[in-house]
Order: sequence, then C-alpha cells, then structure tokens
Amino acid sequence: MKQYLKHHEWQIIEEGFDPHLNRISESIFSLGNGMMGQRANFEETYTGDTHQGTYVAGVYYPDKTRVGWWKNGYPEYFAKVLNAPSWIGIKIKIENQELDLAIYKVENFQRVLDMKQGLLHRSFVATFPDGKKLKVDAKRFCSMADGEVGAIRYSVLPINFSAKVQITMAVDADVVNKDSNYDEKFWDRVYEESQAGWVVVNVQTKKTLFQVCTGMKFDLKIDGNSIHGKTNTNVREKYSDNVVEVELEQNKELVIYKYGVVLSSENHAKDKIVNTCRAKMDAATKTGFDKLFDEHAAVWAHKWEECDITIDGDVAAQQGIRFNIFQLMQTYKGDDVRLNIGPKGFTGEKYGGSTYWDTEAYCLPFYLCTSNPKVARNLLIYRYKHLPKAIENAKKLGFTDGAAFYPFVTMNGEECHNEWEITFEEIHRTSAMAYAMRDYIEYTGDEAYLIEYGLEVLIGISRFWTQRVNWSKDKNKYVILGVTGPNEYENNVNNNWYTNYLASWTLRFTQQAVAYVKKTNSKKYNELVERIHFKEKEEVGKWADITSKMYYAEDKALGVFLQQDGFLDKELTKASDLRASDRPINQKWSRDRILRSCFIKQADVLQGIYLFEDDFTTEQIKRNFDFYEPMTVHESSLSPCVHVILASKLGYKDKAYEMYLRTSRLDLDDYNNDTEDGCHITSMAGTWMSVVKGFGGMRLREGKLFFNPFIPDQWKSYSFRMEFRGRVLKVKVAKEKTEVVLESGEPLEIVLNGKNTRL
Amino acid sequence: MKQYLKHHEWQIIEEGFDPHLNRISESIFSLGNGMMGQRANFEETYTGDTHQGTYVAGVYYPDKTRVGWWKNGYPEYFAKVLNAPSWIGIKIKIENQELDLAIYKVENFQRVLDMKQGLLHRSFVATFPDGKKLKVDAKRFCSMADGEVGAIRYSVLPINFSAKVQITMAVDADVVNKDSNYDEKFWDRVYEESQAGWVVVNVQTKKTLFQVCTGMKFDLKIDGNSIHGKTNTNVREKYSDNVVEVELEQNKELVIYKYGVVLSSENHAKDKIVNTCRAKMDAATKTGFDKLFDEHAAVWAHKWEECDITIDGDVAAQQGIRFNIFQLMQTYKGDDVRLNIGPKGFTGEKYGGSTYWDTEAYCLPFYLCTSNPKVARNLLIYRYKHLPKAIENAKKLGFTDGAAFYPFVTMNGEECHNEWEITFEEIHRTSAMAYAMRDYIEYTGDEAYLIEYGLEVLIGISRFWTQRVNWSKDKNKYVILGVTGPNEYENNVNNNWYTNYLASWTLRFTQQAVAYVKKTNSKKYNELVERIHFKEKEEVGKWADITSKMYYAEDKALGVFLQQDGFLDKELTKASDLRASDRPINQKWSRDRILRSCFIKQADVLQGIYLFEDDFTTEQIKRNFDFYEPMTVHESSLSPCVHVILASKLGYKDKAYEMYLRTSRLDLDDYNNDTEDGCHITSMAGTWMSVVKGFGGMRLREGKLFFNPFIPDQWKSYSFRMEFRGRVLKVKVAKEKTEVVLESGEPLEIVLNGKNTRL
Repeated sequence: MKQYLKHHEWQIIEEGFDPHLNRISESIFSLGNGMMGQRANFEETYTGDTHQGTYVAGVYYPDKTRVGWWKNGYPEYFAKVLNAPSWIGIKIKIENQELDLAIYKVENFQRVLDMKQGLLHRSFVATFPDGKKLKVDAKRFCSMADGEVGAIRYSVLPINFSAKVQITMAVDADVVNKDSNYDEKFWDRVYEESQAGWVVVNVQTKKTLFQVCTGMKFDLKIDGNSIHGKTNTNVREKYSDNVVEVELEQNKELVIYKYGVVLSSENHAKDKIVNTCRAKMDAATKTGFDKLFDEHAAVWAHKWEECDITIDGDVAAQQGIRFNIFQLMQTYKGDDVRLNIGPKGFTGEKYGGSTYWDTEAYCLPFYLCTSNPKVARNLLIYRYKHLPKAIENAKKLGFTDGAAFYPFVTMNGEECHNEWEITFEEIHRTSAMAYAMRDYIEYTGDEAYLIEYGLEVLIGISRFWTQRVNWSKDKNKYVILGVTGPNEYENNVNNNWYTNYLASWTLRFTQQAVAYVKKTNSKKYNELVERIHFKEKEEVGKWADITSKMYYAEDKALGVFLQQDGFLDKELTKASDLRASDRPINQKWSRDRILRSCFIKQADVLQGIYLFEDDFTTEQIKRNFDFYEPMTVHESSLSPCVHVILASKLGYKDKAYEMYLRTSRLDLDDYNNDTEDGCHITSMAGTWMSVVKGFGGMRLREGKLFFNPFIPDQWKSYSFRMEFRGRVLKVKVAKEKTEVVLESGEPLEIVLNGKNTRL
Repeated sequence: MKQYLKHHEWQIIEEGFDPHLNRISESIFSLGNGMMGQRANFEETYTGDTHQGTYVAGVYYPDKTRVGWWKNGYPEYFAKVLNAPSWIGIKIKIENQELDLAIYKVENFQRVLDMKQGLLHRSFVATFPDGKKLKVDAKRFCSMADGEVGAIRYSVLPINFSAKVQITMAVDADVVNKDSNYDEKFWDRVYEESQAGWVVVNVQTKKTLFQVCTGMKFDLKIDGNSIHGKTNTNVREKYSDNVVEVELEQNKELVIYKYGVVLSSENHAKDKIVNTCRAKMDAATKTGFDKLFDEHAAVWAHKWEECDITIDGDVAAQQGIRFNIFQLMQTYKGDDVRLNIGPKGFTGEKYGGSTYWDTEAYCLPFYLCTSNPKVARNLLIYRYKHLPKAIENAKKLGFTDGAAFYPFVTMNGEECHNEWEITFEEIHRTSAMAYAMRDYIEYTGDEAYLIEYGLEVLIGISRFWTQRVNWSKDKNKYVILGVTGPNEYENNVNNNWYTNYLASWTLRFTQQAVAYVKKTNSKKYNELVERIHFKEKEEVGKWADITSKMYYAEDKALGVFLQQDGFLDKELTKASDLRASDRPINQKWSRDRILRSCFIKQADVLQGIYLFEDDFTTEQIKRNFDFYEPMTVHESSLSPCVHVILASKLGYKDKAYEMYLRTSRLDLDDYNNDTEDGCHITSMAGTWMSVVKGFGGMRLREGKLFFNPFIPDQWKSYSFRMEFRGRVLKVKVAKEKTEVVLESGEPLEIVLNGKNTRL
C-alpha cells in the first residue's frame, strides 16, 4: 500500500516527483474517451523507468501463445490490446541538452488529474546541467466530444536565460507491447508523411490487419501570436516528426498546442483514412485548444450530472468513488456494440485488454443504473454474437450438441487464456452470461430480450452444464468435479459451492425462459427449437433432475456452505494474523502454499450469497460472512465490493467502511502492489455498487426498488442518482434521514426502510 | 501403436523405407555408450522429416524458462541436454546430384540394430534422377570400450555407372536444440580446423561454459587400398569439413572409414582438449575400424553375459527385453558419480535429459541386481551431493529449518520444472530418495551408508514432511493437501493415498535410521546433530505423532484404498470401454476432461502396494488391483511394469503377459504414440523388474532372496542372472521346473517356491 497522492474531492494530485512511483502514476493519471487513450506518460523525453502506452479501442493482435508445457485444448493465441502509435511526444532541446526528468533537477513538480473536466495537468521547473531553469506547464485531454481527437497545451518558460530551443513533435508508431510473447513488433508500416506543421503515420497490425492512422498538427504561440521557427521534417519507417527551432526569451512563455487525431479502420475505410486524418487535424487546429476543451468539458459535466456520487465529510472516500466513476466513463461509453470493457481500459496492457466475466458480473449493474438501457443491452448482444464461438469452444473440449462454453478471456469470442486451471476449469463464467440476462431483464423489464436473443444463449449454457455435471453414486447426487471458482486461490476442486449453485440456478432460469418464450411467441420458439435441435421434453427433464438432485457442500455443525469439498481439512487461520511481509501472498508465497492455505482471493461463497441473497436467511448470511470474511485477503480487485454490500446488510459498519476504502482506493493507494501495470477498471463498477447496493441498500425485487440505507460514521451524507425504467431518482442519505427524489419520469412506488413510499 | 519392425531375438529390423516412420526409427535405432550417443540419423543428406540429434553426457544448458503465466516459485531455467556437434555427416554428390533419401528412389532399404554387438547397419540402393544406381552400406557404432570414440564404415558401390563422386565429411557444431525456448543456439565457437584427412571443431556452451571438442579423421579405400582424392578443406564458424573427389568405377566398392572423437571439458582440460582430440583421432585411425569394433563388441559380450535375460519360445518378448537392456546399458554405465539416467538417454531431447525420480524408483533396482553395488551407491551419492540444493529449493517454497525438497527435474540439484501442479505438488518424489536408500541397504546390507550419507538426507526429507502435513480438525488426523501423486492425471488433490503412505513410511524409516546411527557411531551422530541443528527429542516426537495419526483415504465398503479424497465422486468406467479414437487420452482429450475422468495414467495406489507389498494381505492387493487396473490407461511409461509384478503375484497370467509386452515393447511398437521424441529409457529398468520381480517372483525379505516364479503360457522358458552380495545367481524358469544356480560366491540360502533351499 502506498499513500502518496493528495486527497481532494475532484482531483488526483501528486506533488513532487518520485521516479519510483512513476509507473504507478502513469496508470492512475491515464486519460481515455472510450475510443482511445493513453497512460500519463510525459510529452518530453524520459529515460527513467516508464511504461509508454497508447491504446485504441477494438484494435488487437493475436499473439502466439507462450507456454512452458502445452496442454491439450490450449488456444493458439492470446489476443492483446495493442500499444498503438503515440501522438503526444514533444521533445525539448536547448543547446544540445535534452529535457529529461530522469536526469535533470526537478522542482515544484505537480501532476493533477482534474476528474471534473477530464484534464491532465502537469507542471514543474527543471534545471538544465548548465544551470538554465525552465518552467513547464502541460495540459492534455482526450476529447469526450470527439473520440478521435486529443489535444495538448505545452508551455515552456525560460526563467533565467534566453536561448534557441529545438522542439521535436512526433507521431511514433514504432512501439512494442511490453507483454509481447516473442519480442515481436505487431505493427507494419503503411504510410508516413511529414510536412511543416503536421505529420501523419498510418500503420497496420500483423495478422488482424487493423489500420490505425495517427496524425498531429501544431501551433506555436508567444504572447498569443503564432510563430514559425526553422522547421525540419523527418520521416522514417513508422515515424514522422517536425523539428522546429525557436528563440526563447527569458520570462516569455512559449506555448505549444499539439492536436492529435487517431483513426481506426474499424470506423474508417482504409483507402480514405489518411485523407480523413488530415482533414480532422485541420479542423481540430482550426477549432483550437480552448474550444475543443470546452466541448470536452461539457460532456464531462453532463456525465457527472448523470452518475456522480457525492460523499460529504470524507474527502478520501469522495475522491475514491469519483476516480472509479471517472475511469469507467473514460473506458466504455456503450455506444459501440463491438466493444467491451477491458480489465485495464486504456491504462495498461496486462490481461490482454480483452473481455472477462467481470463485464457481466460487475460492470453490467453499473451501466444498468447509470445509462440508457441500450448500453446494457449492447453488452448482452456482444455475448449473443459470440455464441457460435462459445459452442465451438465447448466442442474443442469434448462437449457436444450445441453446449456453449464462453471463454474466460476473449476479443472475438474465441478463448485466449492458457492456464488449464482457469481456461478449462473456471467454468462458472459461462453462467455469468445467464445471470447478467436476468439482471438486465429484472431491471429493465425487457423480458422480450429472451425471445430474440436470450433463450438461445441460455439453452447453450444449460447444455454445457448438463454435460459437465456427473452423477456421484457415492453421494447419490449430481456433482461438479475439477473446477476453479471465482476464488482462484483454489484450483481443480470438487463441488465448489458457488459453481454448483450457479449451475443449478441457470438450469432453473432456462426452464422459466423456455416456458416464457414458448407461451409468448410460439413461432419464434418453434423456429429456435428447429434451428438448434432442442429436444424440450428430454432436455428440460434432465435439467429438472439435475436441479433437484444437485449436491451442495456444507457443514451443518458450523452452519456454513463449504467453498468446496474438503475445505475443512485446512488449517483455518485469519488473514489478519499474516505478517505484513507475507502480503500480498500472491507476490510472496509459492503457488502451492497459497493453494493449500485457507486464504481466499475472493470469497466465492459470499459472491454466491450476494447474487442470490433472497435465497438465504440473514442468519445464514451472517454465519457465512463471519466464517469466510476473516480468511479473505482480497487480492482480487473484484473482492472487497461484495464485502461492502454484505457487511452493510449485516450492519457491520466498520467492515463495510474498511472494504469501501479498499475497493474505491484500490489503485489510488496501490493496495495490491500492482497499479503500475494499469488500473483495475472492471472492479470500479463494483465500487459503484458498493455505495448503491452496499451503503444505499438498494435492491430490486419483482420490479420494485428497495432502499435500506446506512451511513458510515465517517460521513456526513452521501448521494447517488439512478436511472430506472424511464425515471431518474436521486437518493440522498444523511445521518438523520434519507431523501429519495424522483427527478423525472412517471410516479414510482419504492420501499424505503421497509415502508412503501410513492414518489 | 505401430508394428512395423521385424521380430528377431537379437536384432531390431526395419525393412523398406517409410519417411513417416523415420523419426520413430531414429529414436529406436539410437546408439550410445554412456558418454555420448546419437539418434539413428543418416550419414548422408536427408531433407525429409528428421530430428538430428547428437548428445554428450553431462553437458547441459540452462535455457531460460518459458511460461504463459508465471507462478511464484517457478525456476528461472530449464536445464536441457544439448544437441551437440555431429561427427557422422558424409555427403555424397555425383555430378551435382546429392544423395538424399527424401527425394531419390530407394530400394532394398534395411536398417538393423544389432544389439548383441551394438552395431547400427543400414543398406539400400538409391536411384539418382539421371538413372544412376548406387548401393550404400553403412555401419556405425559408439565404442563401449572407449566412450570418446565412434566409427563409421560407409561404402558406396556404383551399380550401373562410373563417375566422379564428391564426398563431404564434416563435423558440424552449428546445431540447435529442437526444444530451445527462444530459438537460441546454445553453442559458441572456440576453434575450428580443417586439414586434408581430418577436421576438428571446438565449441563452448553459453552460460555453463562446457566445452566439447569433436574431431573426425577418415580413410578411403578401394579394394583394400587407401586412395587420396582431390581434397578441399573448409572451415566456417562452428563447422569444418573436407570435400574429397574420387573416381568411382562401376561395380567397385568405395569404402569410407570415418572415425569420430568427442571430448568434453568435464573430462579434459580446456587448454589441451584440441590436442588430445587430434591424438585420439590419430590413434583411432591407426587402430582401424575392425579392431575398434572387436574391442567394442567384446564389451557388449561381457555386458550381455552379466545381464541378459533369455526368453525361449516368444521372439517378440525376447526382442523386447533385450532392447530394454541394450538401451539401459548404452545410457548409463555407473562409473561417473556426476552422471545420472536421463529419461531419453541419448535418443532425444524431450524432458530435458535431466534427472527424475525415475532413477530412484525404477532404475536403482536394475543396477542393484545387475551391477557392482558401487553403481547403485553412486546414484545415491549423486542425490546426497544435491542435498544443499534440495534444502534451498524447500526454502524457496517457504519451508524452514533444513527441510529438503528434492526437485522434480534437475541437472545440478536445482529445480528446473515449471508446471505448478508438478513442480510444487508432485512431492512424493522427495521420498523416492529415502525409499531408494532402503532398497540399497536391504539389497547390499550396507547399513553403514546411513552413517556417512544417508541419515542426513533422511532427516532433511522428514523435516519437509513434518512441515508439509497439517492437522485437520475435521478429520482429527494429519492430512496432506494439494498434491499430485504419481498418477499425473489428477492434480492438486487432497490426501493422495500413495503420498500419505510414503510420507508416513519415511518418517518411520528415519526414526530407525536415527536410532541405528546413534547406536553404531555416536561420534558421527553427534557431529551431525550439531551440524544440522537436529533436535532429536522434539523432531522424532513429532514424526512419531504424525505416523500414528496419519489419515489414509479408503473405502471400507469396497475394501480399497482411495487414490485421493473424493475419488468415488467420479463416474467409474473402464479404459477398455474407451473408443480407440480417444486414445491416448493425453493426446485426444483436453486437460480438464482427463482430470475429472476416472482414468489413471499410472496407478499410484498400486505403486504404493508394490513398494510396500508386505504391509498388505493378498486379499487387499487383489481388491485394489481389481479396482484400479481397469481404469488405468498406462500412458506413463512407468505404469505397466508395476502391473506385471502385481498381476504375476495374483496369478493373473494374461494380464501380466499383456502388460509385459506393453512395457517391453513400449517403444518398439510405439504404444503411446511418442517414440519419435526418443525412447523411454528409465522405464526400461521397470521392464527388467517385470521379468525378475514379476514372472520370477523375486523378493528380498530380511536379507534373504525369495523366488516364486511363474511362466506365461506363450513362453517355453526364461532365464535371468543376478548379482547379490558377492554372489552371482542364474535363474532359469521352464514350464516344468525352476533352476537356481549359484555361479559364483559363497553358499547362499534362498526360498524357492516357499521352500528353503541352500545353493
């Protein structure tokens, strides 16, 4: 854990420059706009430790799988989000001395991420080896108003000298992925051009043949007047720049405006992409930094109006939740059905930037409550479109008859991941698709989704479970062997309670869906039956048999569900008894030691209870929480939010607050010592849930909203806003009372603290 | 399974050339002499599918580990046996056409491995594109009399033409390992020289800095007279050759004698290695092919006298056992304490050519019974020398206080393997060292071994087990969680019966060893106590507690030991019900499917029963055999031999015979579809055991030999020879009677078919 950032309600603030923290800050201060983004790398040269990263949504590369020991069934490739051409570079050279914060003395360094307006602002004074002092002030944003445009205002002010400065402004596509398996570069050149004032670089990915065309145009101003220095234009493979020489006068600020345009062949014809890029650069330059910024800030203002959460009386908590919302909004806007929510967004490369079950299990509720229902629907349709690949994936592993096994990691529906204990065994994810559907339908009331898309997916998934269970003569029950639950600190276990429960629920839900579609739209139903060879009687019969005879591990004496068979053979100790030097255990302990310990990455019994809360009594929930919580080390970013929600329900105020800080400040405070790889984007939706479903006690039951709020002692009040079936609700919780206001839409009956209330 | 080789008592015979089988034949027809060896690659150019492989004992390279997802505790490198400089190349070019069996028409192809004399003999007639027919006859051996020398007699006979032939004779060190993780070459050049008539190439491995100096000298003869053609000498990095032009006359045989010398810096000073190589080449050439061969064949004659097994009436069975003995003898001679028995010997690269538990569990009994006791003792001392590394290895995984965890794969004592389920969890191997010690002491009576070496190792291993078990409150027993047993088709299981049994036995055996050493040599004992901080009372007390309260999974109703907790949850079906297209399952099924199936790679409950046979009643053995055998797919080469031994004991004649063929002809008939990677050398010792302990019913109990032979219906008689405490016994089993003859040594009392007999 590191706590070097200043607390502020709307800003993330780093004061003073510590090179050891640079990679962490590069992640945290990242910018994005749903279509592109980049880490908070410096514009000028930096020869210290850095991870340079620029990313473009939907552009990926199928990197050849690397394994030590190949297992049958492994995928051939791992799809990677691509480190893309960088348009931010502005090198500053004065009398052959190149500005470089890794070497020069740095004073008054400040890096601020203004979340309200989506602006990265950095300033410092550097002393050159010969004593020259230069003040630098750099502002950057990726436009939320036009996802293909970014802009920089970079000013230099000579404090104690006048001299010629050489400024190199580049687009550099000669980049590598840090995680390239075989040190390959993934881009091929297509076209480069450099003219005085602007450059363009067009490149294409190997294998997948995506093109990205990146251009930049600039303006130099002193005292508000454009100036033109001596300019050299340079081009080499996958790189173009302008080198401009300008006279700097002591105490006169030179302002560089740099406009970047990033186009992808996903949105532009390849043969027009360069021309379009030129035109967009011209337009952006004409519009100018200030106006572009105003348009951008206006979108942010609107976004914040829609989904801000306020917390009064606790700046760290307020900053935390806003950071989470800010990053989510930067990452995914929900208007492109081809996209999904990468686990690191535009903040890093780890985990391949592909789609995980995080989307369905964690992100969907956030978008459901804060956005137009089309966003959530798009996320579901994304998986519907992958159904044929999920069926193919199942087939590869020996399943038959249209069983659908959704991949653990994917870009286009194909499985990319290759750890057998996860790829083949973390099978609960395939039911996350089913649960998300229920979530969506319950929240929106859009049952018709089942007819057009839903049922077909559900039947595929249920066919998978039907083949994946087996009958245990010994137990006289159906069992599920050899799985990894959401708690990845157990592998290849038998009868993971969460998995068995979810599988069984899926089979029941699919039965209901079959009945619904059959009744509501028999034509579509019959078409589907025909198309996917659905043998209703036989298949539904089998599902009913499995659900009625499923085995669930539990210990009656302790009154708890057992994470898996044999869990009680472990030495049961508490995470709080671990030495600090042993944590995080996934960085300190060898794999086997973690596996045989009782420590839990993310408590999947509690996850199951969270998903199916109404199936259990409060007493049951309490016993399981009390049993599992102390063993949970929360080394999954997805873990603490669930604990906030359950602790809130159980009235464990301190635990809820502790877990809230952990989830909301996970990256800001680098809890798991891994923020340098990028931020944990998908779990940020969990943070949102921890406020709304946790402290706010929001639940949906049979189409009706329930609120059962509580407020941590540390807070004066908090508020959140929700969209629900055409209404907008604003919930404000203070110590003394809770206000729920219907901001727009038809009247609505809700249940507040157990009482029916009409809004 | 492939059955293309002719059956013969002393020879392996391939008739006709099938390129699809070439890699398999290259493995099977491999040659070696304990110091060097090579696959049965052709001398002349072959552009078809081939795995060119030459190997030198003890020379390895620590190739940087390749993994998909790094797990804490993984080793940095995987030690690889090195594909070494090749000295066999003889290229034949006639009028610009290069002899190449991948392209030219081949007739009368025959490849014969004469196991009696250790000779590879190949002959064929090739038709060149222009119609020229050339008869080739090639003989090759690696001298068992001088492990640094090999020789080739390669003759060409023009059948229907006279022409100039260009012969290229090379030493080529520009070789790669097929399994190089990052396509690196592992050799650096040191020196090359080419003179008319001979060349030498000296290279050095990267990182490990082993040097190998390989030279070749040749003689060309027609009608027994040396001839000298026009010679060009060529040198390039890591390569030297002579290109000689000679006139071929129709129907006149040209004989090329090529002498290879291979020196390693393990045995020669680097600064003298080139000169020594030159001198040895000269000597070998002077001695000449025929005499070198006679010396070599004489060693083989002696070897066969020592350890041949004869089987009368069943050529396939006879060929099988001799092939196994032949390969074992080629691989390891037991005279160099630095060497061990690589799983592929000199026949391939797979598995890194390092040391596995195979040595202790399978090979040791073979060498004990067929060789001077020093050979077995050297194998034990090899592990004694690795004890500090085993302690270091345990430390890396979180164990303390001198616990010793022997690596799964090693060259120098450091762990090389990186699959977490094996590296960290296949922990039974560390006790294989303890069991081997018992085996050695029981067989040789050399209890003093415990004083000098044994006890220290045993205490280290016992300390490992003490920390690796944990107390299960639930079971009120000690348990061992998260392991992989010898049956690698189950991973990360709890309470693998074999592991628990072996661990407990080790703790008991160590207690006895402590008592013995303390009593016999209190000085040495006290020194040891001091040196390794042995707290006798406390540690022995803990061991006694564990052994008395160890949990063993079993099912009382079925009367069987359970491979692991939860085994009975599986669907229990028979391997014989699998479709042929599903086998071998490790090549046809995805990993998860194998893991949750009941199918067993190698039955570890039966392995345990085999090791501790006297602890169980015949009824118990029968029930377990009947339960596990039908589920065993024998996809470990180590599996069938144990089944021969138990089936023999139980009187299951057909099963014993079936399993015998499987183990003895595993490579010859390519049962597991993997012989192309090399032969399964270590399991060959198991084949030997399957005859002696299986059919021969040989057991050792309290220093006394027992024989309880039976003879398969298919055989007329069989015989084997054993060394035992200074005696040599010859056992001949025929249908009607068994003869045990004391060939040399003091009189001996044995038990034959239950009756005490004095020899």
